[in-house]
Amino acid sequence: MTTASAPLPAALVEALRQQFGTRYSQGESVRLQHGRDESKHEPMLPDGVVFAESTEEVAAVVRLCREYRVPVIPYGVGSSVEGHVLAVHGGISIDLSGMNRVLSIHAEDLDVTVQAGVTRKQLNDELKGTGLFFPIDPGADATLGGMAATRASGTNAVRYGTMRENVLSLTVVTPEGKIVRTGSRARKSSAGYDLTRLFVGSEGTLGIITELTVKLYPIPEAMSAAVCAFPSVDAAVDTVIQTIQLGVPVARVELLDALTLQAINRYSKTTLPEAPTLFFEFHGSDSGVQEQAELTQEIAQGNGGQDFQWATRQEDRSRLWQARHDAYFACLQLKPGARCFPTDVCVPISRLAECIHATNEDIAQVSLPIALFGHVGDGNFHLVVLVDTDNPKEMAEGEWISQRVVERAIAMEGTCTGEHGIGLGKQHYLLQEHGEDGVALMRTLKTALDPLNLMNPGKILPPQA
Amino acid sequence: MTTASAPLPAALVEALRQQFGTRYSQGESVRLQHGRDESKHEPMLPDGVVFAESTEEVAAVVRLCREYRVPVIPYGVGSSVEGHVLAVHGGISIDLSGMNRVLSIHAEDLDVTVQAGVTRKQLNDELKGTGLFFPIDPGADATLGGMAATRASGTNAVRYGTMRENVLSLTVVTPEGKIVRTGSRARKSSAGYDLTRLFVGSEGTLGIITELTVKLYPIPEAMSAAVCAFPSVDAAVDTVIQTIQLGVPVARVELLDALTLQAINRYSKTTLPEAPTLFFEFHGSDSGVQEQAELTQEIAQGNGGQDFQWATRQEDRSRLWQARHDAYFACLQLKPGARCFPTDVCVPISRLAECIHATNEDIAQVSLPIALFGHVGDGNFHLVVLVDTDNPKEMAEGEWISQRVVERAIAMEGTCTGEHGIGLGKQHYLLQEHGEDGVALMRTLKTALDPLNLMNPGKILPPQA
Repeated sequence: MTTASAPLPAALVEALRQQFGTRYSQGESVRLQHGRDESKHEPMLPDGVVFAESTEEVAAVVRLCREYRVPVIPYGVGSSVEGHVLAVHGGISIDLSGMNRVLSIHAEDLDVTVQAGVTRKQLNDELKGTGLFFPIDPGADATLGGMAATRASGTNAVRYGTMRENVLSLTVVTPEGKIVRTGSRARKSSAGYDLTRLFVGSEGTLGIITELTVKLYPIPEAMSAAVCAFPSVDAAVDTVIQTIQLGVPVARVELLDALTLQAINRYSKTTLPEAPTLFFEFHGSDSGVQEQAELTQEIAQGNGGQDFQWATRQEDRSRLWQARHDAYFACLQLKPGARCFPTDVCVPISRLAECIHATNEDIAQVSLPIALFGHVGDGNFHLVVLVDTDNPKEMAEGEWISQRVVERAIAMEGTCTGEHGIGLGKQHYLLQEHGEDGVALMRTLKTALDPLNLMNPGKILPPQA
Repeated sequence: MTTASAPLPAALVEALRQQFGTRYSQGESVRLQHGRDESKHEPMLPDGVVFAESTEEVAAVVRLCREYRVPVIPYGVGSSVEGHVLAVHGGISIDLSGMNRVLSIHAEDLDVTVQAGVTRKQLNDELKGTGLFFPIDPGADATLGGMAATRASGTNAVRYGTMRENVLSLTVVTPEGKIVRTGSRARKSSAGYDLTRLFVGSEGTLGIITELTVKLYPIPEAMSAAVCAFPSVDAAVDTVIQTIQLGVPVARVELLDALTLQAINRYSKTTLPEAPTLFFEFHGSDSGVQEQAELTQEIAQGNGGQDFQWATRQEDRSRLWQARHDAYFACLQLKPGARCFPTDVCVPISRLAECIHATNEDIAQVSLPIALFGHVGDGNFHLVVLVDTDNPKEMAEGEWISQRVVERAIAMEGTCTGEHGIGLGKQHYLLQEHGEDGVALMRTLKTALDPLNLMNPGKILPPQA
C-alpha cells in the first residue's frame, strides 16, 4: 500500500486545492478507493484524487501535473482487473465518474455522444424511449471511458463488435493538456491516421478520454434467450463452433462450466442445471429469431444438448443476463475472502475446443477452485482462479495456471487478453505475443506522445532491461 | 512529369540491380506507369521501380533506401485516386503486384492470410468452393494491401464494414526495415496499442503492408438484388435514410443519379431507366431476404419509387454490380479525354438528404458534366467532376465544387473522405477536419515512426508553414 513516488510538490497541491476545493482529496480512504481494483493486485495509492467535472478541468489537471512532473491516472468506477488504476508511481488520480452526462442522442444517426463517466447501464436507461440500445456489456457496470480505454467487449460482441468497432470518435486530453477530437460523426472515414483507434485500448497511457461518440443499434423487433445444458464442456464448445461457422447471426452465446453454474445458483438464487451450459440470445424479426433458434437447437441436439429452456419475456431475459454478468462476483463467493487471478484469452474458434479441453486438464492438476466461462462465440473465455493472496502455494498455483492458459492461447495464434487489457498484470505476455519489434513500435508511440512518461506510467509496456 | 529528387546514388542503383536483376527498372515507361494514378493528378515519376516478391525483399529495399536516404513508395495496381503513388520527392517505387499469393485460408475461422498484391477479385475467385467470401469492394479491382493502406470500403460496407473493421492483422515492413506482425488471428484483443489500425489508412507513410489477415463471411443462403428508379434524388435518399433508421440489414444500397445511369447504359450496354436510382442487395435466409425486400419496397413506394426490378439469378446480379463498379469509368467516357476531380465525402445519415440537395444546387451552377453516386447507406457519396486539365476555367470550376462539397460535409460533422484517402489531394482539408492539434498529433506519429521521412513522403500531412 505504499507508493514509489516522492511527496507531491506543495505548489501543485496548493493549485489543485485552489481550483477544486473539496473536489480535491488526499484522504486515506479516498486514495485507497482509487488505488485498488477488482483483482488480486495489491493496492497502490495515488497521492491525491481530483473529481473532475469537465474536459477543461481534466486538461487543467494534466497541464498542472505536467508542470510539476507528476503522474496522472484516469479513474472511472474501478472495475478493471489488470491493475490499470493502481498508482505505480504515485501521482494524481483523476476521477471521471462525475462526468456522467449523456450529451446528445442522435437517434436518426444511430449514435450518441456521452461524457466518459457515463456507465453502460445508465446509457441504456437514458436511451429508453428512443428504440435504440448500446450493446457493449462487460460484466461490471463500467464507464464508457474505461471501456474504451481497455478496448472492452462483453456478451454481445459476437454480433455487435467490441469498443474497437463501436467508437466513432473520442475527445481526448493529450499529455500536453490539449483537447483533441479524434474524428467526426461520419460512419467511415479515410482522413488520415486513425487517432480514435490509437486511444481505444491505450489504457490512459497516451491521453485521457473525456467524451465518446459511440454507435447505437435499433432494439430488434424480436429477442429471445435460451439456456441449454450439455453432457460435457467439449459438447457445448462444439455447438458454438458449428453455430458460428454456419453463419448464424447469434447475438450472444456464452459458455459457463458446472462450477460457474453452481456459483450462479447460489448467488443469484437460480435453479439452473449445474452442468456445462450455453446461454444464447437471438435478435431479429419474429421469423428470423425463430429460424436462428431452430437451427441452433438442431446443432445443440446433435451434440447431446438438452432441450432449450426459453426466456422470451423481458424480465426473464434480464434476470438471465444479470446472472451471467454477476458470474464473476458469484464465483468470488465460492471461496469467501479470496481474490481472483484474472485470465482472459481469445483464440481462433477452430482452436477453441482444444484450448478449453487442455485448460480443463490443467485445472484438474491444481487445488484451487477455478471456474471457466466466457464469450465463446468470439473464441474468448475467462478463468476465475480463486486464491488466498497470503498463501504462497495458492499464489504459485494461480501464476502457473494463468501462464499455462495464456501461453497456450498465444501458441494457438490467439491473444493474451481478449477484453481485460494489459495493465500491470500481463506486460510480460505482451512481449511474447507481439515480439520485441512489435513492443518496440508500441514504445515508440508512447515515447513520442508522452515523452515525460506521466500518463498512467508503468502500464501496458514492460519495463526495459 | 519531373521529380524534385536528386539523382539516385550510384551505389544504391548498383545494389538494387545486383539483388533484383531485371526486377529492378529505371525505364521511362515503367516509371511512368508507377508515377500516375486514376485521377486528375499530373504524373510524378519515381526514379526506379523494384518488383518485389516477398516481405524480406521489401524489407531489404527499405533498408537499402534508408541507408542512402532515398524515399520508398509502395505500389499495388495504381487504382488510387488521390495521388497516393506519385513520387513527389522521387525515390524507389516498390511494386507489390507480384506478391499475389493467397497464403492460408482458415475456412473454419472465417479468415484468410494473403500477400498484399492479391486483388479483391482474385481473392474471391480463390475462395470459390469454400462457401466464404470477402466483401470489401472498391470500384477498381484493387490490391488488398492498397485497400488496407487507404482504409477502403465499397458497396458492401453498410453491412460488412470497411477495411478498418475487416483487417485482423498485418505484416508490415517498418521504416527501419524490420518486419512486424501487428496482431494475432484472434477475433478481438486488448493486448496493447492497436498497431493494426495504426497502419490501416496510413497510405504507406508509416510502413509498407506486405501481408494481411482479413475476415471472411459465409456466402448467404439467399441473395437478391433490385433496381428502383425514383422521381428525384431527394426521394431516393429519403428511402435510404428510412431503411437504415429502421435497421433493415441491407447488404448494399447505392444511389446513382440520372447522368450516371446515362453513362452506365452507354458503357455497360444496359437499358436502365435514366433517372435517380437505387441499387439494392439483400443477404440472408430465404425468408429473411424476402422480409427485408418487402419492407424496403414499401419504404420506396412511400417515396414515389417505381416497382423493384429484380435480379435474383447470379449472372444478373453480377452484371448489375459490375455495371455499378464500372460507374467511374463509364462516367469518364461522358467527356472523352477528360480527367476526374475525385470527391468522396461522408456525412451522418440525418444530414445526407440536405447535403446531396445542396450539392446538386452547386452542380447546377457549373458548366462541367458532374455525375453523383455512392454508398449512401453509410452517408458516403462521390462526384465524378470531369475536367480538361489544360483548361484553367474547368480546373477552377472543379476546384470550386470539390471545395464546396468537402467543406459542407465537414460542417455537417462528416469527413472530407469516406474511402479514398488524403494522399496529395486533400491535405488542406485534413487540417479543417481534424484541427491544428489533431494534425499535430498525426505529425507526432509520423515523425516518431519515420524520422527520416522516407516512407511515401509528401502524403497525408500538409506541408508545415
